Amino acid sequence: MKIEAVDFYYLSMPEVLDIGDGSQDLLLVRLQAGPYVGWGECEASPLVSIASLVCPMSHSACKPVRDSVLGQTLDDVADIDRIGDLVRTNSLDLLQAAHTLSGIDIAMWDLLGRRFETPVYQLLGYDRAEPRLPYASVLFGDTPAETLAKAQGIRDKGYIAAKFGWGPYGLGSVAEDAEQVAAAREGLGPEGIVLIDAGTVWGHDLEAAAARLPALQEHRATWLEEPFVTGALDAYAALAKQSGSVRLAGGEGSHNEDMARHMIDQGGVGFIQIDAGRIGGISPAKRVADYALQRGVTYVNHTFTSHLALSASLQPYAGHPARSICEYPVELKSLAWDMTHEHLTPDANGLITLPEAPGLGMTPDLEAAKHYLLDVEIAVGGRTLYRTPELVG
Amino acid sequence: MKIEAVDFYYLSMPEVLDIGDGSQDLLLVRLQAGPYVGWGECEASPLVSIASLVCPMSHSACKPVRDSVLGQTLDDVADIDRIGDLVRTNSLDLLQAAHTLSGIDIAMWDLLGRRFETPVYQLLGYDRAEPRLPYASVLFGDTPAETLAKAQGIRDKGYIAAKFGWGPYGLGSVAEDAEQVAAAREGLGPEGIVLIDAGTVWGHDLEAAAARLPALQEHRATWLEEPFVTGALDAYAALAKQSGSVRLAGGEGSHNEDMARHMIDQGGVGFIQIDAGRIGGISPAKRVADYALQRGVTYVNHTFTSHLALSASLQPYAGHPARSICEYPVELKSLAWDMTHEHLTPDANGLITLPEAPGLGMTPDLEAAKHYLLDVEIAVGGRTLYRTPELVG
Repeated sequence: MKIEAVDFYYLSMPEVLDIGDGSQDLLLVRLQAGPYVGWGECEASPLVSIASLVCPMSHSACKPVRDSVLGQTLDDVADIDRIGDLVRTNSLDLLQAAHTLSGIDIAMWDLLGRRFETPVYQLLGYDRAEPRLPYASVLFGDTPAETLAKAQGIRDKGYIAAKFGWGPYGLGSVAEDAEQVAAAREGLGPEGIVLIDAGTVWGHDLEAAAARLPALQEHRATWLEEPFVTGALDAYAALAKQSGSVRLAGGEGSHNEDMARHMIDQGGVGFIQIDAGRIGGISPAKRVADYALQRGVTYVNHTFTSHLALSASLQPYAGHPARSICEYPVELKSLAWDMTHEHLTPDANGLITLPEAPGLGMTPDLEAAKHYLLDVEIAVGGRTLYRTPELVG
Repeated sequence: MKIEAVDFYYLSMPEVLDIGDGSQDLLLVRLQAGPYVGWGECEASPLVSIASLVCPMSHSACKPVRDSVLGQTLDDVADIDRIGDLVRTNSLDLLQAAHTLSGIDIAMWDLLGRRFETPVYQLLGYDRAEPRLPYASVLFGDTPAETLAKAQGIRDKGYIAAKFGWGPYGLGSVAEDAEQVAAAREGLGPEGIVLIDAGTVWGHDLEAAAARLPALQEHRATWLEEPFVTGALDAYAALAKQSGSVRLAGGEGSHNEDMARHMIDQGGVGFIQIDAGRIGGISPAKRVADYALQRGVTYVNHTFTSHLALSASLQPYAGHPARSICEYPVELKSLAWDMTHEHLTPDANGLITLPEAPGLGMTPDLEAAKHYLLDVEIAVGGRTLYRTPELVG
């Protein structure tokens, strides 16, 4: 079958707040081949990924992503790799292309899963999807008291693991940051798994990050996430050498496999966090998952939008050891929750398991999605290159 | 003074060909602060960089580039760094932002140079701009005979160095590639400096690249450029160990300083090639130039559009040793030539020297540019976010 349509839909909350909450908009991808439809999502900036889908060619290595996708044969999983390679070659100089490809790759896996009536994780070669221990992913409160209340609320809901990130952390003093970590620990209780996300706040500043280690060690944080920007390999490596019981986590900014491998091999992270919506989709994410396993590094999904994206982010390591943790955003804006009919919710044991349904096991709720749909129109030289198509199943 | 306007203009040849020629379109940046105007250029895909300038905010770390630039104070070079850091922080998750920032950073340097009536290279701390030996940068011919004729033509024009790239090289057999290199050597003569650009054709395939080394050594190529994609550090390092007299060149795909440093430290390149229109502008390019000098690696500009971009690409290493080489495209499409009043042409000794005029020393020819200008309009949710402004000086 040939890929006949690849359509992008920009969905957004009516108001987008200036906070570290990535669930405020999303880019839904619909792919059609023959009678089959698959769905995916791209991170981030919907408008920019739409532009890279349809932009005019600049030269032979800077083509619109669509040109490497439309009309291609999609009959088996090898086709997905082939199409990914085409995009990477034909859009080599188009920086945004990796994010754009991500949603298309995810939609291709979903489509083949639906066609073969098989969950994506089985197409990836896993016999079964192991249950994961979800960590409730939230923003730090503005004050330690707020963080304490959030942590208590999370514990009351039955989560034993939680990640606190962004907000004031890293922007104030070392003592203030220590109070935030203490509040997270107190709220989650002595047995809770405390994860701390610095959101790249220290850039490349090793000293600033190292100054936070004693509090993280004292309060037994399992990891310190993104003390530095993705690619600050020397800083990661130096901090990893002195972080003791606190392991480093990072990698969400990887937009190709090489970057993720470097974070593992040179950066010395203990947890490699991959966003399937950024790295080029489920395909490169799966290769990173294989590599991490081989290197003794724990693969963890990164995701902060819908449950379609959540399912996609979990597939690449579905067969990794049972009960290893997974990111699970619990402060989703209504858009990200409303967008799918199905949801991945913790079972009686507090664990998340991927659906057994074909593909990603997620069906977009198109009626709900229409309430968030932003019409986009892009014209160049008097020619309309993109106009939001009708949202149909 | 505050930055009052940042305007992007998409210029293109009427027809863009499916060849590795990056001079077929460009994105001109006009920046205004008080009574001063500065000009820059972004690589690549004009439409996508325009979209990332104006896109709606997705969250606190995914803001449109414009939001970190408009209204900022621009009074000295420290402001340029500050604004660059703002963009990197506020647009952390917006992949295209590095390309978008590049043209803005270049325009800020140009503006301050004009304001202080000083060439950019002096603002960068160099006492003088050393002359560079230009290598004529061309595409391989489709056949060795065509490459031979191109090389002879280049030699006849007085160039002693030339780079041949893309086209059929690396796509055919090892023997065919050897014939292409032999033709380049024959045409340039025994004293010529022969540079070969594989255009990332082998991806990560060490064996394929290594198979080409004997011919490159036999015909005394000075470098093999981009055997692999930027970031394939292990493959670069392994090839560098066996390349003998042929040094590796690469780095044009770097969209931040970290990537360039890794190409030097882990990749083992002998020549680090930086495109100021991609890495975030002249500011990070200068820091890479300093680092390369310190590490004994030769910094070389990468550029393939207008002479405005050429001037910008030469500023970061203006004070490096005299007569080191520089990229000099000689097959520019008319757009890239017509776009500036001034041009950087070889002097009687065949050398290129940066202008002594303020800023980049290049004035856009706005009348000429208008013939290539493509009107762009982007609307989201019924609101027009971008409409090509009038092109004024």
